Amino acid sequence: MSERLKEFREFREKMNARILESDNLEIKRFFALDTRAYEAGALPVQTKELMGLVASMVLRCDECVTYHIVRCAEEGVTRAQFLEAFNVALVVGGSITIPHLRRAVAALDELEAATGDLG
Amino acid sequence: MSERLKEFREFREKMNARILESDNLEIKRFFALDTRAYEAGALPVQTKELMGLVASMVLRCDECVTYHIVRCAEEGVTRAQFLEAFNVALVVGGSITIPHLRRAVAALDELEAATGDLG
Amino acid sequence: MSERLKEFREFREKMNARILESDNLEIKRFFALDTRAYEAGALPVQTKELMGLVASMVLRCDECVTYHIVRCAEEGVTRAQFLEAFNVALVVGGSITIPHLRRAVAALDELEAATGDLG
Amino acid sequence: MSERLKEFREFREKMNARILESDNLEIKRFFALDTRAYEAGALPVQTKELMGLVASMVLRCDECVTYHIVRCAEEGVTRAQFLEAFNVALVVGGSITIPHLRRAVAALDELEAATGDLG
Amino acid sequence: MSERLKEFREFREKMNARILESDNLEIKRFFALDTRAYEAGALPVQTKELMGLVASMVLRCDECVTYHIVRCAEEGVTRAQFLEAFNVALVVGGSITIPHLRRAVAALDELEAATGDLG
Amino acid sequence: MSERLKEFREFREKMNARILESDNLEIKRFFALDTRAYEAGALPVQTKELMGLVASMVLRCDECVTYHIVRCAEEGVTRAQFLEAFNVALVVGGSITIPHLRRAVAALDELEAATGDLG
Repeated sequence: MSERLKEFREFREKMNARILESDNLEIKRFFALDTRAYEAGALPVQTKELMGLVASMVLRCDECVTYHIVRCAEEGVTRAQFLEAFNVALVVGGSITIPHLRRAVAALDELEAATGDLG
Repeated sequence: MSERLKEFREFREKMNARILESDNLEIKRFFALDTRAYEAGALPVQTKELMGLVASMVLRCDECVTYHIVRCAEEGVTRAQFLEAFNVALVVGGSITIPHLRRAVAALDELEAATGDLG
Repeated sequence: MSERLKEFREFREKMNARILESDNLEIKRFFALDTRAYEAGALPVQTKELMGLVASMVLRCDECVTYHIVRCAEEGVTRAQFLEAFNVALVVGGSITIPHLRRAVAALDELEAATGDLG
Repeated sequence: MSERLKEFREFREKMNARILESDNLEIKRFFALDTRAYEAGALPVQTKELMGLVASMVLRCDECVTYHIVRCAEEGVTRAQFLEAFNVALVVGGSITIPHLRRAVAALDELEAATGDLG
Repeated sequence: MSERLKEFREFREKMNARILESDNLEIKRFFALDTRAYEAGALPVQTKELMGLVASMVLRCDECVTYHIVRCAEEGVTRAQFLEAFNVALVVGGSITIPHLRRAVAALDELEAATGDLG
Repeated sequence: MSERLKEFREFREKMNARILESDNLEIKRFFALDTRAYEAGALPVQTKELMGLVASMVLRCDECVTYHIVRCAEEGVTRAQFLEAFNVALVVGGSITIPHLRRAVAALDELEAATGDLG
């Protein structure tokens, strides 16, 4: 994994732990719901991760986009499929999403450099 | 189809025609790209419509949600799958999406009343 | 309560019941978290409802605004306090919130017409 | 002016008056700043109203869009110019703005039906 | 105060000064309204800063969140109260606010490291 | 041009090239529409770039704001005109845009330092 992706993951994990060690039960429950939303059910995990990716992109959250790119790749999403998902987000969300699209493609490139061709 | 869905579709079609009969070539091209984004490619139509549905819900656009619900149903999305897609949107977008969730479930109910159980 | 507020509350309650009778456990849990977020804790209920009101206004959700106005009034928020909360939302969210401000003041007027002066 | 535009304007004027008769000085000052932002300065009024129109469209506020369409028409904006402004908003804001584009074109049609061809 | 909070404050103060030394009277007036919105009135300062914090979090503006965290701490908001305010923002705004929640908790930690336990 | 603006432009150009060399025809077409939206037509280029600037600011996208500032300056927009455009965005979008306003004024300062007074 690239340096940038590693740093992102480390800050994410460190602060999630920090949040979950607090006494606020409701926040912990929200984090549990967030995890469960992407688990297999009537829809497969891959579809849910793709929905999470597109939602993150139209809402323009780079961290969320990077997170779902990594998860989608783990679920076997190919480069051509990523680009079609990005295109849906681009059409729905407009040119204001383009800076996020650039960083999403850069994250995809980093991921392929580290793990090999996504297919 | 229910009265409300019929009215929605009629206004939609009338104004789309009105927009496409204008002289603005760029807007027409955007509408073409919008249509093409959901066509079969590396990802199946159903997955793309589900991504469009979740994107519309987190961006809180009732018409877009209704449109993608109708299209998803045509692509065989079941009620249990709809609810899981709604749940992803609810978790990503928060309680501010709940009024749209209410109207989405009402649209789903209207659709089932008109076309029979979605399975 | 005015006709408009009554209709709003009826659709809200009907569809909430419809959503909660579904088999989707995660959505039910989200609704429970939503309720709990405004209960008394380290911060009093009134403060939490005021935070919910301002958040709803900057995110421009009329139903959410109406809901929190009713709840704030039940918690003793006065008209002068409402206007200061609206002003925070107006400054943070800009003139794009003004149509929602108009409907919020109309809801406040309806509420006072039905229940008497808010103080 | 059409029935719909008349109703919109009446509610707008009634509630603005209601807001401005309140004791909240800050809200009144915000309304004054809102008015002044579109007055002639280093940029002409027409350009400012067009900027307000596009901003309202990407932020997806129908009332704001209708208001700026009426003001732009008063400042001599032609139908071809309106469509180019709509196209900028559509490209920047994406397909999620299309329902607002439909209503904007409908408002433009109503305006032309009432006042004659915009040129 | 930590290095990051110091840099944030310095850029903020430098650019605010730069903006206020310009000839644009309207922008100066907006900044004045922004300051006044959080002053004591019918609602206490602490409540207004908490409303500003939650509004900033659901609108996902890290600088605004950091600013209101510092101000809330000055007004005596405790860690448990901060977490309840964050939870309201998380429920209203959804998982898309989580990256901002992580940075908010990091800012809170920095603040406590610099000024001692918030209570 | 300043170091920061140069880096911004380089990443932008590199990733745009990367995106356009992909096999996704729809994304390429979107990029073409994006370019065409700001070309001269019934409205002059300067007005379109100003509309793009204000839209980018209310949607709070720093890269988009920087891009349109550079383009507006090329089209002869003066500092006083920039400030009036910023003010429209500030009034429409609210104080949540202020961090972006700070960075926009910083970008304007960098641009003037590199190319001389904008007039």
